[in-house]
Amino acid sequence: MTSQSRGAASPIGLSVIKGHGTENDFLVIPDLDGELSLSADLVRALCDRHAGIGADGVLRVMRTKLATEPDVRSQADEAEFFMDYRNADGSIVEMCGNGVRVVGQYLRRAGLAGDRVRLATRGGVKGISYDGSDVTVAMGMATARPETPTVDGRHVGVALDLPNPHVVVELASEQELAELDLTVPPVVEPPLPHGQNVEFFVRRGPNQVGMRVHERGVGETRSCGTGICAVAVVAAGDQAGQAPWRVDVLGGSCTVGWAEDGSVTLSGPAVLVGEVAVGADWLQQHR
Amino acid sequence: MTSQSRGAASPIGLSVIKGHGTENDFLVIPDLDGELSLSADLVRALCDRHAGIGADGVLRVMRTKLATEPDVRSQADEAEFFMDYRNADGSIVEMCGNGVRVVGQYLRRAGLAGDRVRLATRGGVKGISYDGSDVTVAMGMATARPETPTVDGRHVGVALDLPNPHVVVELASEQELAELDLTVPPVVEPPLPHGQNVEFFVRRGPNQVGMRVHERGVGETRSCGTGICAVAVVAAGDQAGQAPWRVDVLGGSCTVGWAEDGSVTLSGPAVLVGEVAVGADWLQQHR
Repeated sequence: MTSQSRGAASPIGLSVIKGHGTENDFLVIPDLDGELSLSADLVRALCDRHAGIGADGVLRVMRTKLATEPDVRSQADEAEFFMDYRNADGSIVEMCGNGVRVVGQYLRRAGLAGDRVRLATRGGVKGISYDGSDVTVAMGMATARPETPTVDGRHVGVALDLPNPHVVVELASEQELAELDLTVPPVVEPPLPHGQNVEFFVRRGPNQVGMRVHERGVGETRSCGTGICAVAVVAAGDQAGQAPWRVDVLGGSCTVGWAEDGSVTLSGPAVLVGEVAVGADWLQQHR
Repeated sequence: MTSQSRGAASPIGLSVIKGHGTENDFLVIPDLDGELSLSADLVRALCDRHAGIGADGVLRVMRTKLATEPDVRSQADEAEFFMDYRNADGSIVEMCGNGVRVVGQYLRRAGLAGDRVRLATRGGVKGISYDGSDVTVAMGMATARPETPTVDGRHVGVALDLPNPHVVVELASEQELAELDLTVPPVVEPPLPHGQNVEFFVRRGPNQVGMRVHERGVGETRSCGTGICAVAVVAAGDQAGQAPWRVDVLGGSCTVGWAEDGSVTLSGPAVLVGEVAVGADWLQQHR
């Protein structure tokens, strides 16, 4: 929240960092001391791709002990920093695998993380580690669900929680994957109780798949961290827990592995594009 | 092109300003001494809304006398600065009314313009003036074309150049305007020789209209500067040249007036959202 004058722009109202993980893009807002009043209106204005900066969501980073939510504050002993994730529509969201990796990259660049760091989220503490420019996050356990829903009337889906609900469909050919129309939600029958993300994948080689994803309430996206993990778990089948799998999405590629406790890890690029000094006068009009 | 270290980001590779005019959004790149090698690849990477910063186009601002194109350099006596406009797809474009207004706002904020300024463009020198936070640009003459094409098989369009080609259709009701499907290009028969932008408008009161626009090669946009002027000229009819008209687009509202020489002026908001310090390492990978 500095207010210095820079070049052509007006005084700085807010400093945010634009980044992405396999083209799932975010605005990281360093607000370590929790001074920012982050209204839903401000989130929507910042994420507006034409009238604001533009992103899929906002990732505010603050000290865990300063969080107002008791479930988050109770993680303060384990994790110094908390990822306060908001969707572009202003709503509060539990977790986001690509978002954690982007925050992990920010913490490292800012000198706030060593070789590893633990991050508080509304979905619990997540462990982050680094390998070159890639960032790995421990995503937790994948849990099979009892349902075997039909997708689009012709595919059998595998249902699992990670912990958000997914239905995964294996397709027989690249052509089928390429020709999917995901401008409309796939028809899942019966739907899961709280809706679902739907992933379609094809096998591309040993331990390698390509996928597309339709996220509930959003539509087709370039990448979905938990969806990537769900696909790897289904593709690996009874080999889950052994060698890692490469998963190609529209926005790039990630690797899914397994920690010793059986939890899933998501590794991949996390790119910081640049730091945006949002003008004080613009901010004034969007608080 | 400074290279200082700032907060969390890597050293700065490039400084750009994100702004918009009625939600037609741009990245202004101050490059007064023409030092930047602005490849089509870099333009595409910067304008990528997920992997870059995101915008409809790039507006590089440089000293006119340093331009490589002779037709631009010949404007140096009249206009100190040149707007080098590139579309998000990397292509070079002549002119953009909303872009000129955003550059005008940048020049004023940067202390490079007084009450008025003249700007060199590939479409000739454009005069810019200011009124509060609004920016006005002299867009040149609207020229009637001989064609009267049919649009979507049921409307008669008015064709005019400004100087890019437009076909304007008046609709009878707000409902017709709201229900237009502009996800596909309107069918213009016969089409103009170099294609056309197509505008649909309805009257909303004395000297006020609402419009939607389909831009050739782009699709429906939130705003189009020359399209706004084309609609005002057609709506004004034989009152063109008299009182100004207000034109509402999806991204806001502009006012179209007439200068003494009969040329059209476009006035409206031009917003600078913030200044982006693009990271040197990101830039390195996208040159």
